[in-house]
Amino acid sequence: MSDFAVTTETQTKELFIKMVVAAWDASTGQVNKLFDELSDEQLAAECSPGRNTGIYLLGHLAAVTDRMIPLLGFGERLYPQLDQPFLASPDKSGLEMPPVTELKKYWKEVNAKLSAGIAATTPDEWFAKHTAVSAEDFAKEPHRNKLNVLLGRTNHQTSHYGQLLYLKPKS
Amino acid sequence: MSDFAVTTETQTKELFIKMVVAAWDASTGQVNKLFDELSDEQLAAECSPGRNTGIYLLGHLAAVTDRMIPLLGFGERLYPQLDQPFLASPDKSGLEMPPVTELKKYWKEVNAKLSAGIAATTPDEWFAKHTAVSAEDFAKEPHRNKLNVLLGRTNHQTSHYGQLLYLKPKS
Repeated sequence: MSDFAVTTETQTKELFIKMVVAAWDASTGQVNKLFDELSDEQLAAECSPGRNTGIYLLGHLAAVTDRMIPLLGFGERLYPQLDQPFLASPDKSGLEMPPVTELKKYWKEVNAKLSAGIAATTPDEWFAKHTAVSAEDFAKEPHRNKLNVLLGRTNHQTSHYGQLLYLKPKS
Repeated sequence: MSDFAVTTETQTKELFIKMVVAAWDASTGQVNKLFDELSDEQLAAECSPGRNTGIYLLGHLAAVTDRMIPLLGFGERLYPQLDQPFLASPDKSGLEMPPVTELKKYWKEVNAKLSAGIAATTPDEWFAKHTAVSAEDFAKEPHRNKLNVLLGRTNHQTSHYGQLLYLKPKS
């Protein structure tokens, strides 16, 4: 038995994809569990005094995941109306926000659509360019592929997960 | 020009390594910049009332990075004494902590040693097992390689980065 796994290129790709998708799924699962656990009152609170509320971060993460759908070529996004209050504007902008129950529904729907797209993506497609990079730039920067989008968004989501944890009662 | 990058297996590996190392470096760079910016007083504050202080998270992240050195086969770790106060114990355990200036020095040193190890690792070595998995388990679960350690630790570090951001003055 060797310390090195002997692989073909396709197996190597499949292995990377598994690693990155597993990290995304683990992060989304954590966030989802937390959103399910937190009451509407807890979600309305600020993660730290004067900082983002749980509701804002819920809308923000739903918007970011929704935007990944067209970026990865998985079809049309579901809720473009989330961008104005949750991406283009900071929390407490005074803009109208959907009720928490609606936001939780959006969050689950955008994740379900994204997960379906992920499941249907072939190994070669993951290493193809995402839709926001030109063919010319991609030829020079082949790391700007679809898998790298998932990697970057995992880190973004995880940074907010750390903040959302502060909404839980102290143990 | 194609949407697909044509690659050999080695190029595929190199590409993926570049993606994962870049994500780690970006995360470490962000955290490092923040630790440099925050005053000792700011680092002594809690990220949110009743939660971890910046100093605890500095020691915690230094300990986690230090442990990555032997885990990835880069040699002996530098500061095993960090584990008791910053990993095995929660914040405000009453255990003695090194002064902030020392902790900042440890943080930079463990990262320098880790980065040197990363730079010296060949593509095949990244896909070899890390030192905490048996050869037998690795044969069944080849995703438990060194690169996956870096991927997981990036997410861990990023979740604490989100929390540490609350130590900055509100903009």
